[in-house]
Amino acid sequence: MPGPLEGIKVLSFGRFLSGPYAAMMLGDMGAEVVKVETPKLGDFARFAGPHRDGISSYFLSINRGKKSVTLNLKADRARKIVGRLAGKADILLENFRPGVMDKLGLGYGTLHRQNPRLIYASISGFGYTGPYSKRPAVDMIAQGMGGLVSITGEPDRPPVRAGYSIGDLGASLFASTAVLAALHERSRSGEGQWIDISMMDCQVALCENACARYFATGEVPGPVGSRHPLFTPFQVFPTLDGYIVLIAMEDGQWKTFCRAAGREGWIKDEFFGTNEARLTHYDQFLDEMNALMRTRSTREWTDLLDARGLMCGPVNNIEQVVRDPHVQARDMIVEVEHDRAGRLKVVGTPMKFSRTPCRIDRACPDLGAHTDEILKSWLDLSDDDLNGLRDEGVV
Amino acid sequence: MPGPLEGIKVLSFGRFLSGPYAAMMLGDMGAEVVKVETPKLGDFARFAGPHRDGISSYFLSINRGKKSVTLNLKADRARKIVGRLAGKADILLENFRPGVMDKLGLGYGTLHRQNPRLIYASISGFGYTGPYSKRPAVDMIAQGMGGLVSITGEPDRPPVRAGYSIGDLGASLFASTAVLAALHERSRSGEGQWIDISMMDCQVALCENACARYFATGEVPGPVGSRHPLFTPFQVFPTLDGYIVLIAMEDGQWKTFCRAAGREGWIKDEFFGTNEARLTHYDQFLDEMNALMRTRSTREWTDLLDARGLMCGPVNNIEQVVRDPHVQARDMIVEVEHDRAGRLKVVGTPMKFSRTPCRIDRACPDLGAHTDEILKSWLDLSDDDLNGLRDEGVV
Repeated sequence: MPGPLEGIKVLSFGRFLSGPYAAMMLGDMGAEVVKVETPKLGDFARFAGPHRDGISSYFLSINRGKKSVTLNLKADRARKIVGRLAGKADILLENFRPGVMDKLGLGYGTLHRQNPRLIYASISGFGYTGPYSKRPAVDMIAQGMGGLVSITGEPDRPPVRAGYSIGDLGASLFASTAVLAALHERSRSGEGQWIDISMMDCQVALCENACARYFATGEVPGPVGSRHPLFTPFQVFPTLDGYIVLIAMEDGQWKTFCRAAGREGWIKDEFFGTNEARLTHYDQFLDEMNALMRTRSTREWTDLLDARGLMCGPVNNIEQVVRDPHVQARDMIVEVEHDRAGRLKVVGTPMKFSRTPCRIDRACPDLGAHTDEILKSWLDLSDDDLNGLRDEGVV
Repeated sequence: MPGPLEGIKVLSFGRFLSGPYAAMMLGDMGAEVVKVETPKLGDFARFAGPHRDGISSYFLSINRGKKSVTLNLKADRARKIVGRLAGKADILLENFRPGVMDKLGLGYGTLHRQNPRLIYASISGFGYTGPYSKRPAVDMIAQGMGGLVSITGEPDRPPVRAGYSIGDLGASLFASTAVLAALHERSRSGEGQWIDISMMDCQVALCENACARYFATGEVPGPVGSRHPLFTPFQVFPTLDGYIVLIAMEDGQWKTFCRAAGREGWIKDEFFGTNEARLTHYDQFLDEMNALMRTRSTREWTDLLDARGLMCGPVNNIEQVVRDPHVQARDMIVEVEHDRAGRLKVVGTPMKFSRTPCRIDRACPDLGAHTDEILKSWLDLSDDDLNGLRDEGVV
């Protein structure tokens, strides 16, 4: 059974992360994703290390399953070809800086005239409107300006970023949602539209709870380490061999934990007996808990507490994640086939459909590997046409 | 012009964050979202502080624009009503623990028989399959088990969480994308389907780059503070009055930075002149940069560097975010109308559609405020019917 987007054609422009990741999500769901790249060079992400068998692991991880078409966008004929491709496409995704596609003559206004059904999404650092719209940005800028960095990390320590590139990926996820909503709308109106996604906007949207607290109280939320600001225990503790997340703030959970841990005395303790008491005496509570939790391994604790229905889990490093039996059982680590390098591991998709499951089986394309295939199948070009384009450096 | 999902009916079950946030995204785009809640109590998120004018800011921030219908799911008649509502709905979202909806007789199998067109998405900690499927989870568990915590924070310091609840919100965003892909597929097949979203899966998917590096090298990525592992400067630095994100690792950017900062001598410096040299002598580089960056305020630095086209930005706290002129210009802070409390501020949507823009103008519903409206308009119940249901404690 093909994925839910089987038959949908996507054109993807841009480099690195936000646009390509969104396009990959559509491709995972069965869309035919054509990645347009500069001849000879391609997406700069192809040069991002580490490489294995000559393939950038970075590029592979966000471009699996796509088709690569080279077009030299500085050439008139290449831009005309893009116009014709856009005439066949359902969705165009791009993550250039605002203005770049317009300067190339490939802005929404132009392509919409050629294909009124085209859904065109632009992802940029700050969006197309507002005072910062011309400023460049990368993930860290969006994380910093959008508020995430200010609430991440330990109090009284330097700011830290979230470990994955959520400044980019947040924009990818809102963009994928938005283009599919526009696709639904098109099924009734027959018309496409333009979607303007700003990485900074997306960070503000994800800071909803911190903003809500600020609106309600006027207090500025700060970083809280691994703690929940209102509940305890609801955080990370050290163990004999690593770290564990433990959630046991409700009275019943706390009682269960104390019994499992051999600390029955804490159940009715004046300092530790209630969530409020523990918050009030937090420093002392933390010292005692740290000492207690360090007496057993993470696995011993999770086995003990899990059997009693408590919410807990190891802090897994990346090796533990990819080897985790549950992660494996959920097909979150899959192998894809690369023409030259054979089978390569990538992360799977979390979008599990019962009737039209995603199929992830192809690796990332070599640069321009599908130029002929796509220009023939979408535009009916002949071998002669393609040889001419190649001679002129258009593809 | 209505939003792109105008006319789509969504039923939302569950509490707190992941399901309700996904449902809110659909509502922001024009869908009619009916939140089904327990009579008298409602979603526990209504009790999450801080409160203002008796309204939970937490509840408001993820339930604006929805309609609240109370149904006592322990009563047979209530469950039959849910079946009839599902018969009218396009999408059902729920984030109970696996098995809860089944036990209520409201699992996908049952509701699909009543409405083969229904798209039904279940968000849970670990999904419906795999060894952990019965385990409970909250945001911190997903962040910890899914790998994010292990790559967030400072090296040689305790693990920290990402400051917002991306364990939940990541699942919301993959769920919103997936249900809309299924909606597209339904427009051709006429059939709905079930979507199984696991919070842990979503974290693994977002760790794509860390996993890719591990697959390529076998090295386990660790936390990197605010640094990029391969490029420098590409991180946060302290200033006279706060922190700044600065990206200037390419030779041209570095030259521009050195000139702007009055450090021309660093351009060809043996230790600092190239990205590789700076990485090799990172400790010394960091000391010198910290001293330099502390000589000016964040605003002075961003004005100076921004004028030269360098990528930089302040580390904004939440107050600075919501007051930022760009955030305001992008309508990322909007006011919604609450029946009792008047106008309240919430965060806007980052999904900006050119032809069918989102409209965010209503606050969160009081508990059960739309029971009569929805049961009359979706199911043609009469006032007598409703009085009967109310007398029996069904609604």
